Amino acid sequence: MSTLITGIAELTTHDPEGPGGPGPFALVLDGARVAWTGLAADALPADERVDVGGRAVLPGWVDSHTHLVFAGDRGPEFAARMAGEPYAASGIRTTVDATRAATDDALAAGLRRHADEAARQGTTCLETKTGYGLTVADETRAARIAAAVVDEVTFLGAHVVPAGADPDAYLDEVCGPMLDAVAAHVGWVDVFCEDGAFDETSSARVLRAGAARGLGLRVHGNQLGPGPGVRLAVAHGAASVDHCTHLTVDDVDALAGSDTVATLLPACDLSTRQPPAPARRLADAGATLALASNANPGSSYTTSMPLCVALAVLQGGLSVDEAVRAATLGGARALRRTDVGTLAVGARADVQVLDAPSAAYLAYRPGVPLTWAVWSAGRPTLDPLRDPR
Amino acid sequence: MSTLITGIAELTTHDPEGPGGPGPFALVLDGARVAWTGLAADALPADERVDVGGRAVLPGWVDSHTHLVFAGDRGPEFAARMAGEPYAASGIRTTVDATRAATDDALAAGLRRHADEAARQGTTCLETKTGYGLTVADETRAARIAAAVVDEVTFLGAHVVPAGADPDAYLDEVCGPMLDAVAAHVGWVDVFCEDGAFDETSSARVLRAGAARGLGLRVHGNQLGPGPGVRLAVAHGAASVDHCTHLTVDDVDALAGSDTVATLLPACDLSTRQPPAPARRLADAGATLALASNANPGSSYTTSMPLCVALAVLQGGLSVDEAVRAATLGGARALRRTDVGTLAVGARADVQVLDAPSAAYLAYRPGVPLTWAVWSAGRPTLDPLRDPR
Ligand SMILES: [Zn+2]
Ligand SMILES: [Zn+2]
Repeated sequence: MSTLITGIAELTTHDPEGPGGPGPFALVLDGARVAWTGLAADALPADERVDVGGRAVLPGWVDSHTHLVFAGDRGPEFAARMAGEPYAASGIRTTVDATRAATDDALAAGLRRHADEAARQGTTCLETKTGYGLTVADETRAARIAAAVVDEVTFLGAHVVPAGADPDAYLDEVCGPMLDAVAAHVGWVDVFCEDGAFDETSSARVLRAGAARGLGLRVHGNQLGPGPGVRLAVAHGAASVDHCTHLTVDDVDALAGSDTVATLLPACDLSTRQPPAPARRLADAGATLALASNANPGSSYTTSMPLCVALAVLQGGLSVDEAVRAATLGGARALRRTDVGTLAVGARADVQVLDAPSAAYLAYRPGVPLTWAVWSAGRPTLDPLRDPR
Repeated sequence: MSTLITGIAELTTHDPEGPGGPGPFALVLDGARVAWTGLAADALPADERVDVGGRAVLPGWVDSHTHLVFAGDRGPEFAARMAGEPYAASGIRTTVDATRAATDDALAAGLRRHADEAARQGTTCLETKTGYGLTVADETRAARIAAAVVDEVTFLGAHVVPAGADPDAYLDEVCGPMLDAVAAHVGWVDVFCEDGAFDETSSARVLRAGAARGLGLRVHGNQLGPGPGVRLAVAHGAASVDHCTHLTVDDVDALAGSDTVATLLPACDLSTRQPPAPARRLADAGATLALASNANPGSSYTTSMPLCVALAVLQGGLSVDEAVRAATLGGARALRRTDVGTLAVGARADVQVLDAPSAAYLAYRPGVPLTWAVWSAGRPTLDPLRDPR
């Protein structure tokens, strides 16, 4: 089954060998892959043809950082915090209690509901993490449930030390039996390297233990203040260091001189009333940027990649092109994937169409739902021609 | 035709005599009015019953500040600005040229399309302004077209001095023949009181001329820097002064001691990379606040009141209750209306249902489309039971 997409007002492929010039361009999907891009006038026939009516076409979002295997409602805690009550660090543990108490079916249904919500906003490649189980059994269960729903699964046993546990004994457990049990379900290991969570030495041990089992490395770092997260991620060759809200000049230089992606989480900065991460400085220095939602029930309960793009432009100082690239190709780099975040021939047919003539409208029209159509691996998951709104 | 709404997880009425305590509450709409609110257990039967399944119910948004009678596309200009090119003050004039060149039908269709988009995001009472015509004929046409679509129309001939015009002669025209021609179609007069637009003396003259014809008064002030806008609005008893991004201590005190509403436009502050207006300071001082979108193709091209609420909480420091009140009851106050922005018995049946258990989720889940159902004057305009998404 092949699909020819025409009526494209602006085509973003991120393919250096893709079509250039004034267009108009067209795109052919064949099965789960991009089969052809080029001038509409040169397009070959396909099994079906979709005219998108003068709209912008771009790769689906790659959301490389979420925490969506969870249960419980923290809306009242959020409202109290916004009304002036101080942030309670016990928040993660509230979610841990609710997640442990939930059934497998409830966790899977919650994850699927959030993944579907993300897909309706253009996300076609999704990473999610464990980290609300914090026992061998609960972390393994979370990893198994996640692996059945999302593209990439990350083990985050090193999220916080669970209530009542001895920090050293818990670290031993994370780096030994817990990692052994989850390794079959995950591709990545991550650690929350921050004051109050895991220090540099402990974080390095988690990364070494993950690498020894063949997992890729990710780090949560520099969220709440300057710290060793970025330095550690670069030194260990991590694929990504995420948050990067508080960076020194040395951190920026280290990122620019490395293959480690700086993954910014602008909706999290906004939701925690933090300053925006220094996106412009990182881009000017030459660091590779990704944008992700950090969707989680505590610090950033949004699946909206369009909002992340808008904030990265309006608050972070990126151009629209830089922000769109970071939310697609950048996310793919942060997951070390070459098949997503691009519409090059051979890439996975992850395509979104905006109800706007260009991707600039994502920042020009913040908050307005602009996702008009989505194909995930060639399958239409949002189809305005069949499901009119 | 009456409708009983049940299954309400949280009911916001803004009615001091409305139901209190733990609930659960229900709501009855009869024709275009709210007929009853109270405990679900006490509800009387109605012609139809809608169970909203544990969702939050609140008044529809009152968006008291938009500029939606326009033509032309400024997306490329926006993208260039975000890529570092300086803001061109000629922007408004670009829209003026395109608007003058458009047919009546094109202007009406554009306005209707944006009004419908706003309604899908929960807006049930909409103000819009003229200001892209700037001739007697073009301003009158804009006012007439607007009056056929929205609830409240404002004359903004004093937006900018049109290209090539003599400032004094243009001011004479605005305060004389233009005002005479539009007065039948509008309820309000407004002036852009800012460096580069109209100074304090000229702005006062516009307000006096409008008041002499029985129009209510509104002012654009203190957007780009400190200035006389707030002082002028309070001195003239204007219903609202809008923007309020740059305020002195005296401005805050003047607003707190007046009936003039401080209308904040957080999406505009975001879109122009300005600091957020001092919402917390104004609320603490006792000023009445409204939130509006300022939807327009130059400085804030969004119709999303949910985004405005989220930004007022996350950037402006308001509590969720304060922000929701400002976006409903506050907007009504800014338009001197008592029939909207509230679900008190007798109010217009303007109701929205969120796909969330409480209104806090508007800020807790920024960017996620949460508008689930909307009634406008008792008529379902977004109905998930009939139009599944
Ligand atoms: Zn995270
Ligand atoms: Zn305005």
